[in-house]
Amino acid sequence: MIFLDNASTTKPSKDCINISGFYQTERFFNPSAPYHPSVVAAEDLSHFRDTIIKKLKGNGKIVFTSSGTESDNFALFCSKKRNGSRIIVSQSEHPAVATCANELKNRGFDVVFCPVDASGRVIEEEFLQLLSKDVSLVSIMHVNNETGAQNDVKRLCALTKNFDSNILFHSDGVQALGKVPVALDDLGVDFYSMSAHKIHGLRGVGALFIKNGLHLRTFLYGGGQEFNVRSSTENLAGIAAFSCAVDYAINHQKENYEKVKDLNGYLRTALSEQGDAYKIISDPGGSPYILNFAMRYVRGEVMVHSLEKYEIFVGTGSACSSKKTDRTVAKFANLSPEYEKGVLRVSFDENTSKDDVDYFINKLNLEYLAIEKYMRG
Amino acid sequence: MIFLDNASTTKPSKDCINISGFYQTERFFNPSAPYHPSVVAAEDLSHFRDTIIKKLKGNGKIVFTSSGTESDNFALFCSKKRNGSRIIVSQSEHPAVATCANELKNRGFDVVFCPVDASGRVIEEEFLQLLSKDVSLVSIMHVNNETGAQNDVKRLCALTKNFDSNILFHSDGVQALGKVPVALDDLGVDFYSMSAHKIHGLRGVGALFIKNGLHLRTFLYGGGQEFNVRSSTENLAGIAAFSCAVDYAINHQKENYEKVKDLNGYLRTALSEQGDAYKIISDPGGSPYILNFAMRYVRGEVMVHSLEKYEIFVGTGSACSSKKTDRTVAKFANLSPEYEKGVLRVSFDENTSKDDVDYFINKLNLEYLAIEKYMRG
Repeated sequence: MIFLDNASTTKPSKDCINISGFYQTERFFNPSAPYHPSVVAAEDLSHFRDTIIKKLKGNGKIVFTSSGTESDNFALFCSKKRNGSRIIVSQSEHPAVATCANELKNRGFDVVFCPVDASGRVIEEEFLQLLSKDVSLVSIMHVNNETGAQNDVKRLCALTKNFDSNILFHSDGVQALGKVPVALDDLGVDFYSMSAHKIHGLRGVGALFIKNGLHLRTFLYGGGQEFNVRSSTENLAGIAAFSCAVDYAINHQKENYEKVKDLNGYLRTALSEQGDAYKIISDPGGSPYILNFAMRYVRGEVMVHSLEKYEIFVGTGSACSSKKTDRTVAKFANLSPEYEKGVLRVSFDENTSKDDVDYFINKLNLEYLAIEKYMRG
Repeated sequence: MIFLDNASTTKPSKDCINISGFYQTERFFNPSAPYHPSVVAAEDLSHFRDTIIKKLKGNGKIVFTSSGTESDNFALFCSKKRNGSRIIVSQSEHPAVATCANELKNRGFDVVFCPVDASGRVIEEEFLQLLSKDVSLVSIMHVNNETGAQNDVKRLCALTKNFDSNILFHSDGVQALGKVPVALDDLGVDFYSMSAHKIHGLRGVGALFIKNGLHLRTFLYGGGQEFNVRSSTENLAGIAAFSCAVDYAINHQKENYEKVKDLNGYLRTALSEQGDAYKIISDPGGSPYILNFAMRYVRGEVMVHSLEKYEIFVGTGSACSSKKTDRTVAKFANLSPEYEKGVLRVSFDENTSKDDVDYFINKLNLEYLAIEKYMRG
């Protein structure tokens, strides 16, 4: 199997599975219970929290959630905002942010969508024009989930804070964590969303970073876990695996980045060699983990299914919007009609090999020729 | 180890761990992605959903959540309620419902807390007095998490619907699921909260039952998963384990109930034999899985730690409120001063043996005599 849809989910690592197994069998105790094994579980929970915050150089705290989507909902709905104030999000946000923004618009906020370039990256001049004294919150993703476009979050956050230090800045870091350098103190963000299952952790675990001195309204009411803002018995097995996944990803971030960058460049070159057959959407300056391109005359879905027989799995864009007809990427990529339905997203992980990419290119070209000939009649 | 705090969490079963392992390694694909293995994952998700709904005889759908607490928050906040209308909850609700109710009060709802008897059971006459044309929502737990008191949810729901069929009825079934008979069509409830980790499933998974024809507002905005009301990449490994846990618990509900009922009666008798040393709070008509009692002159926390040296683990009440001084049980149990700080909660699972209970009684009595003598000087 050649799995090239790692932006949708990743295969959990053996280390993550093993540590979660230990917490499911040996240390299954409720961290909120009063006896010693639970006190140990609570200490372990603190340790995992500290590990993640240290790896990400955050001056603040981590609140564990159930997913990146929950973290985004948490930040957008529970951050303190004046009624009717302006909220700036980018045009290329993941649905987890974009649909929250639409709901906030329904609730009377002045939600504005900042234009992005053809790769999905926020256009700085456009962003500056949207800043006003009415802005209470900005949410700009770090790495785009469809194209890998990387926003200069540090700069956008600094521009925002220079304009008005009271404006809150959130970034969805789900596709950035462990893939590109993430130093939260350097980025300067107030809130940062993360997900475990995009970096070989387990599904059902995410986190939200909250900068020191900031407070969010409660997201889940109940027993008071997670600093009283996100109640629920702590999913310690999943959190242990998340900590393990962050540890691995950050420790190997540089070497994996270089490796994947080479693969990305290799695939990019191979696609370019096919003339007009493929139009690359992803900017070379983005995260190398994602390479998005469009095929001329061939629909993305058709190619996905054609490649299945070779046990090659790629996506057509965000899995989270796979059942919707309006792909986010189509909004900004300026694709001409012969390309607009042909979007494919290839997303690597650090285990993808050059042989995998060779096999993919070979089968892609083979299938493309067969289908394109048929489609053109 | 003798683990007698199964109401706080349970040890995941081998079957649950095994099936989650299969979905983490062999079938880790995102159910929302377009290729065949993801289609299979989506089919499996449907299968697990159907399994649970069939086992619980529900005329409606299951929405998977991350916890019982989330399910409670979902039902209380996202059910359709007229602004300022009355919401009835019981005085003995778990914090996951009680704190939501308090927040709804802050938001202008007329939240009323229905009195309960000394075991935590809703008093029907009091409940009837609270029903009015202004009521939009009732939330009465099925089995109390501290005492095991079992409300006649079927009757309370019928009384409510007879009064006004438009009133929505929610029940927190976290301590009932798999322990006492649960047939959702018979109970007649509109919404029912469940949690996996109380029945040997994994932490981080819960569910909310929603009766046919009813709609909840969206709880998590995003990619549109879970009928578009609870977005997030589906935690299929956890859901598979939850389905497995429900399957086992319901298939063995009767025999396990009888077994645990015997244990409960056995412990109840043994405690009674010690004269005034222990005052039993739990009503014999409740769920046998929980036996709550108070010790005279001996603090619950002191006994918890005294029993640790024998590897016996019991709780002092809800783990979810263990860090708070105001235990819910103290509100209704009418304990005299010499008992009020001595609450202990023993909670069984189907694997608890008579030998375990004997050992517990023996050590409890031993420690009680030593501490009580010391406490009285």
